[in-house]
Amino acid sequence: MALLHDLESAQDGTRVDLTRLLDVLPFTNEGLIPAIAQDATSHEVLMLAWMDRTAIERTIKEGYATYWSRSRGAYWRKGESSGHLQALESFRFDCDGDAILLQVHQTGPACHTNRPNCFYLEVDGNTVIVRGDRC
Amino acid sequence: MALLHDLESAQDGTRVDLTRLLDVLPFTNEGLIPAIAQDATSHEVLMLAWMDRTAIERTIKEGYATYWSRSRGAYWRKGESSGHLQALESFRFDCDGDAILLQVHQTGPACHTNRPNCFYLEVDGNTVIVRGDRC
Repeated sequence: MALLHDLESAQDGTRVDLTRLLDVLPFTNEGLIPAIAQDATSHEVLMLAWMDRTAIERTIKEGYATYWSRSRGAYWRKGESSGHLQALESFRFDCDGDAILLQVHQTGPACHTNRPNCFYLEVDGNTVIVRGDRC
Repeated sequence: MALLHDLESAQDGTRVDLTRLLDVLPFTNEGLIPAIAQDATSHEVLMLAWMDRTAIERTIKEGYATYWSRSRGAYWRKGESSGHLQALESFRFDCDGDAILLQVHQTGPACHTNRPNCFYLEVDGNTVIVRGDRC
């Protein structure tokens, strides 16, 4: 974690090897880090999923978001069956290395319900209201 | 989880009691759900932190983001010491109930490094580059 600590006070433009950072990421006990996908154009937050080191490396190398599906126990290139791919615009880690932000060009709806994004359950006082119909 | 499944196909405007949803959220083994904070105006993704049920209820009731600090093992109203509060604009759950999206009005920088947001480590080929100086 010394590397992440050093980068906290590093100047704009400082570079380190990606491998050095991957080696010190604080993965969960399951070996995962949460990854936020944001639309690169509209800046809408689309979804949150999980990546292990291999999913991180595949996403960076291939240019399309690949996650680890906890429910299926398998890698999952987003859109591999639906066609709703996420082409990578940028890939960022946060200050603690325990969260990822992807900016993506989303093909079609991001949510498996066919809504544009997954965050359609909005708290309104003591109730939750569904925002948006399935496409 | 039947409630979340039913809501997947619910029409726009459907309402359910907040308590019913809180009762079925798939918290992690540590009792937590990841929460994304997004600037309500600029739509910049500011940070990711964690909430348990009490943090969720306090955030909704008080109108300011309160998280559970895993490192300190304590509730943490964001900005309680720095003054960099997050006033709540909206609070949303995702389709699976295992992620939260807060839209907030952020006072000052969101990151403890005094950068505007926490996602300043950007992958660039085989390197990672620091984006932005501390304010």
